[in-house]
Amino acid sequence: MAAVDREVTARVILQQCLHAKLQVKPPDEDSEAEWTEIQRGMVIYLCFFKGSTKDVIPKIVSSVLKIKLSETENGKHVSIIELPGNILIVPQATLGGKAKGRCMQYHSNAGKELGMELYAQFISQCQQELESHPSWVEAGTVLRHGTYGNRQVLQLDTNGPYTHLLEF
Amino acid sequence: MAAVDREVTARVILQQCLHAKLQVKPPDEDSEAEWTEIQRGMVIYLCFFKGSTKDVIPKIVSSVLKIKLSETENGKHVSIIELPGNILIVPQATLGGKAKGRCMQYHSNAGKELGMELYAQFISQCQQELESHPSWVEAGTVLRHGTYGNRQVLQLDTNGPYTHLLEF
Repeated sequence: MAAVDREVTARVILQQCLHAKLQVKPPDEDSEAEWTEIQRGMVIYLCFFKGSTKDVIPKIVSSVLKIKLSETENGKHVSIIELPGNILIVPQATLGGKAKGRCMQYHSNAGKELGMELYAQFISQCQQELESHPSWVEAGTVLRHGTYGNRQVLQLDTNGPYTHLLEF
Repeated sequence: MAAVDREVTARVILQQCLHAKLQVKPPDEDSEAEWTEIQRGMVIYLCFFKGSTKDVIPKIVSSVLKIKLSETENGKHVSIIELPGNILIVPQATLGGKAKGRCMQYHSNAGKELGMELYAQFISQCQQELESHPSWVEAGTVLRHGTYGNRQVLQLDTNGPYTHLLEF
């Protein structure tokens, strides 16, 4: 069995993709929905818990960008920076859910204001870290992200999502 | 913060979908790849850990089929049985990964033989539970699943994946 024994401040799911498309603005009376998309790379689903602070963000950024989960043409696993691959960040508060009977409760989730602030910080620090790697920038790869608080309408095309969970 | 303090025997990620398509046999010299697909419903990514036994399966089956995560046309959340919706089960051993430095290790995962047996049991018990609900059967909804040990080449179309983690 896998032993787990600690407090969690953030939960991340990583999935590899060939293409991913995410709605960043729902349609309304005056305009159509707006979307963002990436080609080959990694989708980062992200949720912060109560008690999270900015201090945890550098560790999350470093982990998700440097962990070797992206497959090269030769089947070798390297980091998303080394690939180099695109990144799509999806705020996903549902990841904080805990089952109580047949319902999910989200009592441990960070409040909206804190969650939004940490989410913005995470994106900004990811961008900063990525831009410090000339080979990632020169490859024309991009970082895209969803809008906090929106429904994350997502389309995903993979060669195996290779789903991983990371907790901080 | 979310307190976590126990042994995990199985890890499940649930995502809601409008359509999902999964490769169940890779292409080879003689034949093209084979795929299975579902329309509106739920994708169940599943991983068993060392120390898991058949005893845990009824609890997982009951939880994933009865938890209220599926959205009706009116925005109400009901179970996948109540929706009624389709189900796609994806074996996902990578969910057992634990980061060590920049690499993922899978030392806690159930061995191949045990994992395969529990996976088969899970599918069979899901099918049995679903078939005991006439309204689910009569709706023409289906249970589909991936092939254990294969690369799970997946395409997903969602109205929001509404990603949830369950541990047993």
